[in-house]
Amino acid sequence: MDSIGFTVRYGRQLVPIGGPDAETGYRLVGRDKDGEIECTLVVNEQTGALSYDFHRDIERGTELTFRCDFRETDTTVQSCYLDNRLGVWNALRLCETLQDGIVAFSCWEEHGGGSVAYLARYIYETYGVRQALISDITWVTEGVRPGEGVAISLRDSLIPRRSYVERIRRIAREAGIPHQLEVEGSGGSDAKELQHGAQPWDWCFIGAPEDNVHSPDEIVDKRDIDSMLALYQVLMREL
Amino acid sequence: MDSIGFTVRYGRQLVPIGGPDAETGYRLVGRDKDGEIECTLVVNEQTGALSYDFHRDIERGTELTFRCDFRETDTTVQSCYLDNRLGVWNALRLCETLQDGIVAFSCWEEHGGGSVAYLARYIYETYGVRQALISDITWVTEGVRPGEGVAISLRDSLIPRRSYVERIRRIAREAGIPHQLEVEGSGGSDAKELQHGAQPWDWCFIGAPEDNVHSPDEIVDKRDIDSMLALYQVLMREL
Amino acid sequence: MDSIGFTVRYGRQLVPIGGPDAETGYRLVGRDKDGEIECTLVVNEQTGALSYDFHRDIERGTELTFRCDFRETDTTVQSCYLDNRLGVWNALRLCETLQDGIVAFSCWEEHGGGSVAYLARYIYETYGVRQALISDITWVTEGVRPGEGVAISLRDSLIPRRSYVERIRRIAREAGIPHQLEVEGSGGSDAKELQHGAQPWDWCFIGAPEDNVHSPDEIVDKRDIDSMLALYQVLMREL
Repeated sequence: MDSIGFTVRYGRQLVPIGGPDAETGYRLVGRDKDGEIECTLVVNEQTGALSYDFHRDIERGTELTFRCDFRETDTTVQSCYLDNRLGVWNALRLCETLQDGIVAFSCWEEHGGGSVAYLARYIYETYGVRQALISDITWVTEGVRPGEGVAISLRDSLIPRRSYVERIRRIAREAGIPHQLEVEGSGGSDAKELQHGAQPWDWCFIGAPEDNVHSPDEIVDKRDIDSMLALYQVLMREL
Repeated sequence: MDSIGFTVRYGRQLVPIGGPDAETGYRLVGRDKDGEIECTLVVNEQTGALSYDFHRDIERGTELTFRCDFRETDTTVQSCYLDNRLGVWNALRLCETLQDGIVAFSCWEEHGGGSVAYLARYIYETYGVRQALISDITWVTEGVRPGEGVAISLRDSLIPRRSYVERIRRIAREAGIPHQLEVEGSGGSDAKELQHGAQPWDWCFIGAPEDNVHSPDEIVDKRDIDSMLALYQVLMREL
Repeated sequence: MDSIGFTVRYGRQLVPIGGPDAETGYRLVGRDKDGEIECTLVVNEQTGALSYDFHRDIERGTELTFRCDFRETDTTVQSCYLDNRLGVWNALRLCETLQDGIVAFSCWEEHGGGSVAYLARYIYETYGVRQALISDITWVTEGVRPGEGVAISLRDSLIPRRSYVERIRRIAREAGIPHQLEVEGSGGSDAKELQHGAQPWDWCFIGAPEDNVHSPDEIVDKRDIDSMLALYQVLMREL
């Protein structure tokens, strides 16, 4: 639901969708009126301008995404778009055991958002629910390490309500679920639309960390996926 | 409704309203407590600082706009503020033939917006309408040429719903109306407020391209104005 | 309600909350699981990176704020966070004489906002009120001087409705309350959320100017505080 990539502009120019990592040689796929496309990303070393290498011209406005090369080991999964396919996977797995709660899938988070405002209002006004968890993937940093558990974000460019985050941390500790605390000064998530909307939502970002962010080689430690799902299961019961 | 320009600050300083082109010598007009003003824009070559040249001081907070020098040839119109007086003109001309539909005029698009959120909610909740066309003017670029027809924007900083844009393109093709496809990585329009609001609007930017953007010399090809109006007429019937 | 400051990140790193002034030596206070904290801000001269100097590590996610050193003379008050404790003080003092009107306290203005959208909708829909004054503190500049009266902002990054600001200016003149007119090209206030929301609010920023902005040494002239309160008292009667 949340693929980043590129749009074909004029000539062989590309413009990014969201913030994809760009390196010459990345394989891109898509489809236009002349059929299936598998081409190569080219980054101009001087200007940074983006283009593609292909045997024919691609129709203006065509969307290209990373070709998926899914790799799995005993301890990791690796692919493009784990951010945020893993968040979606987590939400779907959660449905297997969920008793009370709403699982909402939002679009366009990597490209300016726009669906959460509607969802937030609809859910609040229809069901009176106003506690949210953001099931998305975060970044491995010097303070958030692969294999050490799902990350609970204490802040990014926005700051969630302290009392809500404290309740989440207490539930995680009491359940004995491995987790890490993330503190960033920038970045954001769909929580931005909850924070800025006209309904009084509490929110907290909770997600496994990945490395090689927004590249075809995103990689996540399976232990962090396990603790992510386990934490969501307990939080959806106890929050 | 959408004039850009300058506000008089302290001393003879000016601060921009929206993103006006600024060149020393542009004629600016306005009015303050001491009467009518016609002065000259001065751009400091070193610092880029904006000021005015006039025989007296102008009252703090006064708004200055480009002096209008309307020029018409057989094939073009040229003036300041074609962006977005032509969009307004298109909407007014559309009213002459419109059977079903709403023509809404929104303010402040060049300076942060703020009226579309209200209009979008009111129209959606009162009439159930949720398909929008943005009647505004775009830019001549390497891919969008004067005289080749109204531009249908496939994206700018935001991306409209593909199925909605595909319907619009099909209607334009079947009606035989000249048009061009625009693909940009930046820029935006009032569509931003539709995208980010709490109602599920579909939207698409459709407008003639202009050259000499945001200057006193904006120029548009009459053929593109004609195809803009023709496309709006058919779309308001068939969408 | 509106303290800016720092969040403890990893190691001894700090990330800012809002836009605090940062100088090595500023005293910061806070509290974590190990107790009360009073430490010193350290700014890396090469990189600008922020950290703290303290006898022990501080818990990740802890919030640190400027230590308050309140100073008062016959003509000034000086402290951290006059922006926006003085705005809150003005609103509370206003309550002593207010007959008709709503005093609403909003949060997070210095860090991305998020409470005004809710308040704006609730107040508009419940009470039909749609005229707002933003009781906040502004900056001493070349055009707004300490001691010359409360500032009425004609614009910052946004522009309020001219007719509303004109009414306010007329009331201020007729009441003989000292005031100054502010014109800025950037900056903003909680008015942004009023402007961008789905209710048709008019708004105007009115506040005393301060110097040493966002530092522990913010200073305001008492005459400007007096004229701020006086202007709010008359406006809440006459608007």
